[in-house]
Amino acid sequence: MRMYDIIKRKRDGEELSTEEINFFIRGVTDGSIPDYQISAFCMAVYFRGMTVRETCDLTYAVRDSGERLSFSFDGVRVDKHSTGGVGDKTSLVVAPIVASYGVKVAKMSGRGLGHTGGTVDKLEAIDGFRTTLSDEEFVSQVNSIGLAIVGQSRQFAPADKKLYALRDVTATVDSMPLIAASIMGKKLAADDDCIVLDVKTGSGSFMKTAEKSRELARLMVDIGKNAGKRTVALITDMDRPLGYAIGNSLEVIEAVETLNGRGPADLTEVCLALASHMLSLAGKGTVEECRRLAEEAIADGSALSKLVETVRAQGGDPERILHPETFQRAKYSCSVTADRDGYISHVDTESYGIASLLLGAGRNTAEDSIDYSAGILLRRKTGELVHKGEELATLFANDRALFGPAAERLRAATVFSSEKPAEEPLVYDIVT
Amino acid sequence: MRMYDIIKRKRDGEELSTEEINFFIRGVTDGSIPDYQISAFCMAVYFRGMTVRETCDLTYAVRDSGERLSFSFDGVRVDKHSTGGVGDKTSLVVAPIVASYGVKVAKMSGRGLGHTGGTVDKLEAIDGFRTTLSDEEFVSQVNSIGLAIVGQSRQFAPADKKLYALRDVTATVDSMPLIAASIMGKKLAADDDCIVLDVKTGSGSFMKTAEKSRELARLMVDIGKNAGKRTVALITDMDRPLGYAIGNSLEVIEAVETLNGRGPADLTEVCLALASHMLSLAGKGTVEECRRLAEEAIADGSALSKLVETVRAQGGDPERILHPETFQRAKYSCSVTADRDGYISHVDTESYGIASLLLGAGRNTAEDSIDYSAGILLRRKTGELVHKGEELATLFANDRALFGPAAERLRAATVFSSEKPAEEPLVYDIVT
Repeated sequence: MRMYDIIKRKRDGEELSTEEINFFIRGVTDGSIPDYQISAFCMAVYFRGMTVRETCDLTYAVRDSGERLSFSFDGVRVDKHSTGGVGDKTSLVVAPIVASYGVKVAKMSGRGLGHTGGTVDKLEAIDGFRTTLSDEEFVSQVNSIGLAIVGQSRQFAPADKKLYALRDVTATVDSMPLIAASIMGKKLAADDDCIVLDVKTGSGSFMKTAEKSRELARLMVDIGKNAGKRTVALITDMDRPLGYAIGNSLEVIEAVETLNGRGPADLTEVCLALASHMLSLAGKGTVEECRRLAEEAIADGSALSKLVETVRAQGGDPERILHPETFQRAKYSCSVTADRDGYISHVDTESYGIASLLLGAGRNTAEDSIDYSAGILLRRKTGELVHKGEELATLFANDRALFGPAAERLRAATVFSSEKPAEEPLVYDIVT
Repeated sequence: MRMYDIIKRKRDGEELSTEEINFFIRGVTDGSIPDYQISAFCMAVYFRGMTVRETCDLTYAVRDSGERLSFSFDGVRVDKHSTGGVGDKTSLVVAPIVASYGVKVAKMSGRGLGHTGGTVDKLEAIDGFRTTLSDEEFVSQVNSIGLAIVGQSRQFAPADKKLYALRDVTATVDSMPLIAASIMGKKLAADDDCIVLDVKTGSGSFMKTAEKSRELARLMVDIGKNAGKRTVALITDMDRPLGYAIGNSLEVIEAVETLNGRGPADLTEVCLALASHMLSLAGKGTVEECRRLAEEAIADGSALSKLVETVRAQGGDPERILHPETFQRAKYSCSVTADRDGYISHVDTESYGIASLLLGAGRNTAEDSIDYSAGILLRRKTGELVHKGEELATLFANDRALFGPAAERLRAATVFSSEKPAEEPLVYDIVT
């Protein structure tokens, strides 16, 4: 088998065999296929696409390119994966809700990069919280408490790491089968029993249209089911930030507020939707029944208790959760005000994420360090009427020089109109 | 400027600016753009194509990536370039015809690779013939005799060398703008005043259909004219070998026969067509007038004398030209006979070229050595009626073991039918 022929066949729109796809991923993993052939192949896939069968094969080959989680956990294990957004702190809310019902959540999360934040970074805003656990600690914590959240330290799907690095510099990221195989290859290596996918759609997400998001969701659900996993995808709105807080400790505070039943309506709604599907997949009842369970876990404080328990178990200071006002605040704050009257008709959510990054809350490259207290608290969101001079957002930073560029970015990303914009749904669709 | 953006723009079907194309070729030449970005770009070009303007820019950038021939020759200089075929010995015929009228031919030719032969290899079949001359020898011979033929030793268009090597292993050779820029970039670096392109079409050529050949011809002629060169393209048949001889010394003998007025009809016709366009571009009259000039140069022996003069000047033994029967023959020969009655309705010409290669007359890789006496003499060609047991071809080799595979290849490439096939033109079109 020659890589040349595989490239040519894909270039000519033919369907590749399982053997050819395995040959490709083996060669990516062991380095025997040179980068220039990999990138030419990815560009051919960009133009020609892949059938569902090919995409499944690619996903499984990616999954099998490295180790798979083979610990023995007690009970059903469920994971939630978000395609990434701005102000998305849902993991901090839904994982404790689900775990409070005895469903296991053994979460390995990524760090933030670019305009999107990462769950691990948010948790590290809590003094003492350890995002690296030994295998024994990890398994034992999941089995006893039901929840552990650690950083991605394992050699899951090394083929994806290599592939993604090349796609990132050759304009071949934006290909449905390659995206699906990348996400699901890693997810399947973690070997959870149930997977709830939160496919974001809109200006702050990777998929800018609901149609593309639906297509990706459908593909990933098919791949997951094909691999024997209970899988469902929610398509949720990322055309505006989720909640009002963007930035690590600010988001933890908002997540705690939500677990206290005082969270923003949009964040609460998306969390309840995700948690009810996670519980339902794990066998706790219908989605409607599980919705009530999720609401109860917030109302009776059991979800919050589960988060406190988890933070304590991983070495974090539970005071931050019990009294979030104790989080260290950034030294400086700055108001961004409206320069005209009108409704906020649209925001470029990605730019909001970048504004937060500019304040120190995010990373441009994987090596950058993070300022946990930096970020943005929105005061007005899409659809709201604003008067000139009113505050749109408060910026937080430990260096005043950062306010100018961030404020400019945020202002440029906010579009006003004289009419109230139509309301967009929070959950666009459920793909089962 | 970032290569990433250039790839993305081409991927999205946008037209690149001259600056972007120059940036790309500069980066290819100096190695600052990594191979994986080059190959992804080539694949994007494969799918999206290029406008004529982009292709011209690409060609000029390739031309300017290395040195350009800057010798001063006396008089108008004309070149003929073939896209490569089987049994194509036209250069050996047309160059002496044209030079016999005082038009300068300073020919730098390639070596054969794969199923196509190279002019330089054919000339080296002549004992003593030197295909490497010093700059001074080359210029002085062109100015005095009017004709010199040497191997391609100069650093013309190094960007093309790099690009072609990558395209060759990433299934991106077959792209019209990339092919045109590759051929014309090198041709323009040689800086002849007139260029006659022989674009082959059919089973033995790179372009399998007349339509594709026309498209390529149109593009290359536009590029040449745009660069200020008198340019014309002939689309000629390569759906059957040209003439009856395939293999180096066998082809020289057939070329000499043609210069003696006893050549095969097809070879003679294509040579006269090419030579008349070369002479006409060089200002020797209309194409019709130049056709008579070309015929006269054969009839009065002046073209043959010019070849003898050239061979002598480059150290070759003129006896081989004056008495071609003195060429050393291969030790063994073998007849391939028809196993049925019928008309030869079609031959896969590329396979005929490969059969000759298998006998030792060609190269699989650039490092292979060549057996000058090996090759094939066809006894029957497409359109002819053959009876069972009649000879189709005679094979020549210095190792009897080579006959089996070559004969098998040749036989498998020959299609018979009970009806006489329609006659195909030799010259499909002239693109001016």
